[in-house]
Amino acid sequence: MHLSTILLTTLSVLTSSFELIPAVFTPFTEDGSIDYPKIEPYSTFLKEQQNISTVFISGTNGESLSLSLEERKRLTDEWAQTSSNVIVMVSSESIVDSVELSSYVKTVSETNSNIISVAAMSSSFFKPSTAQDLVDYLKPMAEAAAPLPFRYYHIPSMTGVSIDMIEFQDLVEDQIDTFVGIKYTDTDLFTLRKLILNKGEGVEHFWGKDEILITGIATGATSAVGSTYNFMGRTGYDIVNAFLTADLPSAQSQQDKIVNVVSSWGNLGGIPAQKAIMQMVGMDLGRGVRTPNRALTDEEYDDLEEKLKEVGFFD
Amino acid sequence: MHLSTILLTTLSVLTSSFELIPAVFTPFTEDGSIDYPKIEPYSTFLKEQQNISTVFISGTNGESLSLSLEERKRLTDEWAQTSSNVIVMVSSESIVDSVELSSYVKTVSETNSNIISVAAMSSSFFKPSTAQDLVDYLKPMAEAAAPLPFRYYHIPSMTGVSIDMIEFQDLVEDQIDTFVGIKYTDTDLFTLRKLILNKGEGVEHFWGKDEILITGIATGATSAVGSTYNFMGRTGYDIVNAFLTADLPSAQSQQDKIVNVVSSWGNLGGIPAQKAIMQMVGMDLGRGVRTPNRALTDEEYDDLEEKLKEVGFFD
Amino acid sequence: MHLSTILLTTLSVLTSSFELIPAVFTPFTEDGSIDYPKIEPYSTFLKEQQNISTVFISGTNGESLSLSLEERKRLTDEWAQTSSNVIVMVSSESIVDSVELSSYVKTVSETNSNIISVAAMSSSFFKPSTAQDLVDYLKPMAEAAAPLPFRYYHIPSMTGVSIDMIEFQDLVEDQIDTFVGIKYTDTDLFTLRKLILNKGEGVEHFWGKDEILITGIATGATSAVGSTYNFMGRTGYDIVNAFLTADLPSAQSQQDKIVNVVSSWGNLGGIPAQKAIMQMVGMDLGRGVRTPNRALTDEEYDDLEEKLKEVGFFD
Amino acid sequence: MHLSTILLTTLSVLTSSFELIPAVFTPFTEDGSIDYPKIEPYSTFLKEQQNISTVFISGTNGESLSLSLEERKRLTDEWAQTSSNVIVMVSSESIVDSVELSSYVKTVSETNSNIISVAAMSSSFFKPSTAQDLVDYLKPMAEAAAPLPFRYYHIPSMTGVSIDMIEFQDLVEDQIDTFVGIKYTDTDLFTLRKLILNKGEGVEHFWGKDEILITGIATGATSAVGSTYNFMGRTGYDIVNAFLTADLPSAQSQQDKIVNVVSSWGNLGGIPAQKAIMQMVGMDLGRGVRTPNRALTDEEYDDLEEKLKEVGFFD
Repeated sequence: MHLSTILLTTLSVLTSSFELIPAVFTPFTEDGSIDYPKIEPYSTFLKEQQNISTVFISGTNGESLSLSLEERKRLTDEWAQTSSNVIVMVSSESIVDSVELSSYVKTVSETNSNIISVAAMSSSFFKPSTAQDLVDYLKPMAEAAAPLPFRYYHIPSMTGVSIDMIEFQDLVEDQIDTFVGIKYTDTDLFTLRKLILNKGEGVEHFWGKDEILITGIATGATSAVGSTYNFMGRTGYDIVNAFLTADLPSAQSQQDKIVNVVSSWGNLGGIPAQKAIMQMVGMDLGRGVRTPNRALTDEEYDDLEEKLKEVGFFD
Repeated sequence: MHLSTILLTTLSVLTSSFELIPAVFTPFTEDGSIDYPKIEPYSTFLKEQQNISTVFISGTNGESLSLSLEERKRLTDEWAQTSSNVIVMVSSESIVDSVELSSYVKTVSETNSNIISVAAMSSSFFKPSTAQDLVDYLKPMAEAAAPLPFRYYHIPSMTGVSIDMIEFQDLVEDQIDTFVGIKYTDTDLFTLRKLILNKGEGVEHFWGKDEILITGIATGATSAVGSTYNFMGRTGYDIVNAFLTADLPSAQSQQDKIVNVVSSWGNLGGIPAQKAIMQMVGMDLGRGVRTPNRALTDEEYDDLEEKLKEVGFFD
Repeated sequence: MHLSTILLTTLSVLTSSFELIPAVFTPFTEDGSIDYPKIEPYSTFLKEQQNISTVFISGTNGESLSLSLEERKRLTDEWAQTSSNVIVMVSSESIVDSVELSSYVKTVSETNSNIISVAAMSSSFFKPSTAQDLVDYLKPMAEAAAPLPFRYYHIPSMTGVSIDMIEFQDLVEDQIDTFVGIKYTDTDLFTLRKLILNKGEGVEHFWGKDEILITGIATGATSAVGSTYNFMGRTGYDIVNAFLTADLPSAQSQQDKIVNVVSSWGNLGGIPAQKAIMQMVGMDLGRGVRTPNRALTDEEYDDLEEKLKEVGFFD
Repeated sequence: MHLSTILLTTLSVLTSSFELIPAVFTPFTEDGSIDYPKIEPYSTFLKEQQNISTVFISGTNGESLSLSLEERKRLTDEWAQTSSNVIVMVSSESIVDSVELSSYVKTVSETNSNIISVAAMSSSFFKPSTAQDLVDYLKPMAEAAAPLPFRYYHIPSMTGVSIDMIEFQDLVEDQIDTFVGIKYTDTDLFTLRKLILNKGEGVEHFWGKDEILITGIATGATSAVGSTYNFMGRTGYDIVNAFLTADLPSAQSQQDKIVNVVSSWGNLGGIPAQKAIMQMVGMDLGRGVRTPNRALTDEEYDDLEEKLKEVGFFD
């Protein structure tokens, strides 16, 4: 029992530092332009309803690659005006645009200390062939944003990029001074564990699969970025707390709430389905998404709501 | 603290039932034929050195698809003579051979109660197109082996078969009476959790990724099948016990022993590398494997041994 | 006009040597066993109705991997009794079985000169990692069959094996004395052309995509193996003759007959659909196929027949 | 012989209309910005040295996705000032930018009649799920560019988009008035033939694989877009003429010149390798490419030049 007490104490320290970071959606008006006035209430909603302090903007959920450079700059401005801590995803397919956005974010951060980091993923149309090519691709962005910390956003299911991540981490730690971690969105947890074992000091791994959050914690991730934390932030923290205080059955049971919600939208597409859910929970960001994503029809919206009722989402 | 006491008690029950099952290798003589006399000492080694009671024979590690039907029958006979509990993988690409082996295993089991189950995977050259086609493929094997329990062996990275597993589990539970579970060898833990949530009574999920054993336990698997339990069975149980008694740091640290060993063999091929390791730990099964797998050269063997020394495998 | 005369003369020589070789189906009885008495009339049908002299047996269309070793031996015996020239596909997943069948075919060929060659593909569950591993896998089969000529059967869409074919051809020419060619079943015609440019003397490339036969001829293949030649052999030769006598519009128009037939069966599966077509054209091989392939239902059969009528197949 | 005369006459008509269209590169200065003054001499080079009248700009070879919107507008302006006919690829990952560029090209075309068409490919990070989603994605671009003709650029190896092309063509013909054809860059010639058989009036298929140009002609493509026509335009026309005048051996022999050149650059990357070749043939566009593509080192440049000498490229 003595040991257990020590353990629980140790774990509660861990727990207090494990942060959940929603990858936020981009609100659209009916005519398809960005609904900037929604950013402030969105930030407040996350803080007050979801217990969320930090957001990841302009990422996959934010449909970044479907936005223009000007829109992404303006989004940065708007989030900088909130009280959320902000990580800005800066990459696009064009290195020219990516560097310009990086540089812009750095400037904004100089007068807005809540801009805490930039992140970038690989381009997906043209793909780097080697780990070094990937570092070479990221470096100009990191340099334009310095001294802001730089995170690599690993999401091979979307980019189609399969680079040896262990080799990449060695190279990036060596060559990019501001590198502080990886947002790891992949099911390959063996590689994640190897990355954690091999990492240098000050490097962190954010876990990007919210539907299996517990496996990322078990593997040693120190924070998590995900989409469901937009509307299930408290559930997310329940999972973290249960897991880290050794209550596996409860952690699984909380995790299953997210599993059931994610299962509910089936093939509707994660972004439009979750924008619909945001409406359902009272934080209306518009139901629109940019093509080639496709917004839910009214019928699909109602079906989804019905399914969510069945799994107790609104209880 | 009261709650914690209850928890630890509950977990220790779980722990005691969580079983580690090595997928055993097939020993070869110098001339490439099966070295049957090695089976008995191999079983003893597993029991005494590795704390292992149950084995999975004629699976991927056993190079089953590289064996003839007669060899697989004889392997069944030999393992039936040991004191190990035995699960026999019965499928091959030909349904005719698969059914014949199923039927044979059933007969052997009638006089050898340690033959406790059969398992089968999908064919990989011709692939079932639908979940129903997969059930139709498995059914004749299950029926030939009945009343022996039947397990489905899911290993899409080898078979290339991507069937909706949730639909499959519904169909197989309904249509195969002797179905008792799935050996799940895939990194998609979201689907594994959904399978566990949807499963009928008496159905179990064996986790097939030993290098990330803790993530499978966290997800709710009730046993595990893997290759490293052949020589790191006790480490495997240390992981299980640490994890289920709420000691995550220790579970991770034990898990890392397996991570480091698996990392050591790099691109050498899991089967030949682990046969070499069996030699190193004193259970010589021969170093040979059947083509298209390729045995380690002496140099590769020495390099591997060196790397294993570096990560403390022999300590 | 003078040049044209020379050309047409040259091409007619080419034409006369370009051979179409059906990959034959395996006839089954109602109870699922092989219907051996159908082999002789099948051979006669091919010769008299389809203008076919040489067959490729025990290949993908023949559902070889779904047969037992004994069945494949017996199939060899039966085809040896016909007047067709026979190429026997000898590989299975197990090298032991593959070598035994190779050796058996060689013995049969000693008293049956119409057995003219063996062929083998890569195993698909265990995959060779390198071109050398693939040669090492094929070599024992080639040696067991020597002095029968040996062909490699390249069909990556089924085996999942992606080896550098240029490197492979160099190695196999060097290391397997009886190697005489490749049956190339892939859409990568750039690589096919490079193989043809790099090939040694006496090596031939059989083209395995009948629905785009003209592209294989254009690329320089010297013969073709395919499934539709079982019932559209004369159309196949019409394509060859039109193409090689410089009548591209006619070659395309003949080719479109095959395009339309192949399109007719959509997702039904090539093997069961074509067995149904064999019934329709009066060469009844049974409609059955071995699981995981699935035979056409009566309704699917009728629908297919209707579609074939619409595209003029029976005219 | 009479028939042959007719044929050759018919084919010569075909030949005269078969056009080769290079996908042009984007010239960069030493500092990585676009070297606009090179466009005019590049156009002249293509016309005078390569017999080329029409160019495809801002496509894959042009590294379009690595450019900014402003750069792509300016490129359009510059090419509009040349005497080349110009097809402008307008899509980027963001539909907003894509529509803006489409609209810009339309405006430029109003005063520059040599801007003859726009083309667009699918986005690759977010992928359309259905054929209808793809049409919905393309439609705003086509509408913004109307009445300029619209072409779909199919290049699944880069975009990762696998949509049923037959269904897509039906939908796009029905829903986009200005649709006039597909630039088909894929090895699946069976689907290309089905597209040609199913196409409506006025729809054309451009063949996008120059290393196997003859197979595209054999399949019925009416023009070709490719990279090697930048420096082997005359060879390209030699292939077309030989093929369409029934001289297959000569067509193959000319084709092999392109095969050998493409083979020469191995894994160096098609874009940087061909920019190096442009330097070698006297049309210096700079050797630079934008990351994640990587320019040839001096050593790689020299090696490539050596290999090209060996295959007689400079003869």
